[in-house]
Amino acid sequence: MQYERKNIQQMAGYVPGEQPTDAHTIKLNTNENPYPPPAAVMAALGEVQPEDLRRYPSPAAAGFRDAAARCHGVSSEQIVTTNGGDELIRLALTTFVEPGQPVGIADPSYSLYLTAAAIHGSPVVKAKLTDHWQLPTDFAQQMNAAGVALTLVVNPHAPSGQLLKKDTIAALADALDGVLMVDEAYVDFADPSHNLVPLIKQHNNLLILRTLSKGYSLAGLRLGYGIGPTNLITPIATKTRDSFSVDAIADRVGATALAHRESFSAGWAMVRENREKLVGELRKRGFTVPDSQTNFCLARVPNQATQSAHTLYLALKEAGILVRYFDTPALNNCLRITIGTAEQNARLLAAIDAASHE
Amino acid sequence: MQYERKNIQQMAGYVPGEQPTDAHTIKLNTNENPYPPPAAVMAALGEVQPEDLRRYPSPAAAGFRDAAARCHGVSSEQIVTTNGGDELIRLALTTFVEPGQPVGIADPSYSLYLTAAAIHGSPVVKAKLTDHWQLPTDFAQQMNAAGVALTLVVNPHAPSGQLLKKDTIAALADALDGVLMVDEAYVDFADPSHNLVPLIKQHNNLLILRTLSKGYSLAGLRLGYGIGPTNLITPIATKTRDSFSVDAIADRVGATALAHRESFSAGWAMVRENREKLVGELRKRGFTVPDSQTNFCLARVPNQATQSAHTLYLALKEAGILVRYFDTPALNNCLRITIGTAEQNARLLAAIDAASHE
Repeated sequence: MQYERKNIQQMAGYVPGEQPTDAHTIKLNTNENPYPPPAAVMAALGEVQPEDLRRYPSPAAAGFRDAAARCHGVSSEQIVTTNGGDELIRLALTTFVEPGQPVGIADPSYSLYLTAAAIHGSPVVKAKLTDHWQLPTDFAQQMNAAGVALTLVVNPHAPSGQLLKKDTIAALADALDGVLMVDEAYVDFADPSHNLVPLIKQHNNLLILRTLSKGYSLAGLRLGYGIGPTNLITPIATKTRDSFSVDAIADRVGATALAHRESFSAGWAMVRENREKLVGELRKRGFTVPDSQTNFCLARVPNQATQSAHTLYLALKEAGILVRYFDTPALNNCLRITIGTAEQNARLLAAIDAASHE
Repeated sequence: MQYERKNIQQMAGYVPGEQPTDAHTIKLNTNENPYPPPAAVMAALGEVQPEDLRRYPSPAAAGFRDAAARCHGVSSEQIVTTNGGDELIRLALTTFVEPGQPVGIADPSYSLYLTAAAIHGSPVVKAKLTDHWQLPTDFAQQMNAAGVALTLVVNPHAPSGQLLKKDTIAALADALDGVLMVDEAYVDFADPSHNLVPLIKQHNNLLILRTLSKGYSLAGLRLGYGIGPTNLITPIATKTRDSFSVDAIADRVGATALAHRESFSAGWAMVRENREKLVGELRKRGFTVPDSQTNFCLARVPNQATQSAHTLYLALKEAGILVRYFDTPALNNCLRITIGTAEQNARLLAAIDAASHE
């Protein structure tokens, strides 16, 4: 007897990047921040009391919700807290998309979008990016023509690192018939002048996803949030979200992290500096690397190289360095490399050089 | 422009019990364990390192998953870890129920089942419990006749506290055409000889829900799990569950809690003892209280009392004691009272006595 739904039987699960448990591997495969959270964040964790664990948490994670509202200059009703950004991806589908109604994405992008749509029972309309990782000019028209209820755009883009500017996003929100969710998982590493939040006042179909997994060095804590107009936030916050999806520790530690934004932003500046150096060194070695506004870069292996992206991925793994290889046609000659510390990046380059001389 | 799905527009959200932030309120409204987690659990929390936060957690929460498997004498593949038991309720719908296909429950039971079904877009088939809170004899027939894909049974029952025995559950699993999920949120407070886990070998449609929120005093941590045959567990664990739904702290602290089961079980024995005393005292005062195998009891206000359940609820709240009042026909003369410490229960009884003499 088969009890699973047909769409679940037929789909493949999401495959997360490898999570080695040893401390020696240089992990440049899942886009974690290379710098640990500051002492103030660990101190907040140390203040957790037995009573915080014994009792149910604030249903809305009110402490963090209020901190996020202050951080962005919006009201708490314009924020919804989630169990990592991934929960908001699921909730956007649950709240705004009838099962069977299509979801729209740019292709390629974060592969979890495909998994979430498959679980929801919705087809995915994919608009192919240009050779330079830009949205096609008729992107909104493609989405509207297909009756897309929710369009998911990761910006800065993964896996290319490219950033769509505020005006482009505003025009896209205007042009789309459905909801536009902009996944800003990597935005902390982008040019600090970039800020979409003011757009939520003019665009009642714009939902912004944020996470503390990347910029705030808290991937292990599972904390994300949405910023948007109340017509989008309220049904998620009061109806579709699990009532206690953010735990008492994340509520407290996350609020402290946002309050110490300045400590983190020094790290973001270092990532930007390391990124420009690494991208320059990779280009010197013949890799094609688009400009990145994230904490990773997408490196296309030189045509004349003796090694394919896959063999280079394996050689680096053998050398104790994990990067991300995607076995898909659009990306099959590319590696996505997380920007590590200066020392990690130097070791990566040395391992690439060693592999190319074998 | 209305972007929400129609079923979301039309539904009401789940309303959790009040979570006062002051430390003085006696909180007997959300069924937390009255005893804090032991020192070993807090010590595990203290061992969390910055690296545990910076990196993504184990996707499957492997440390806790293995600990739960050892605890129950099953394989890790028969366990799925979730962000509180509530996530497993949602995932059972996502995995086994087509939107629109009915879900079955006994009425009354945990009200979140209704919310989860409304979000999923599925109607709910409700089989009314007998006057003594027992399942009707034709329960399975009612479910099968309606084409129910998933039946949710909370056992011990909430809000009455009644326990269905293992043989009854086995017969129910045999009789049902669909999946039977037994929500054992409160099972740690039941007779220790009660154990459904061996049934998963014979019943490939039986899924057991457990949580660390009640018995393990970790409601603030959000950690639950499912135990079941691999044909039910695998699609949840590898496809429908968010890949990182359990954070690194819950993975570590939860595993420690299960390893210290003996420390907790002393508390469970105290709850049982306090429960029998409190139920006896309430009955002496004319309340009708069914036998409970949980850490709460359902007290029906005496007919001759000057106060309704609602006015008594308000009088207790005024006295700084929160209990749960449900504004539904089947329960409108009842209060659900969490079993507190001996001292809290004595203060509750004194407040009830004071209210009845006003």
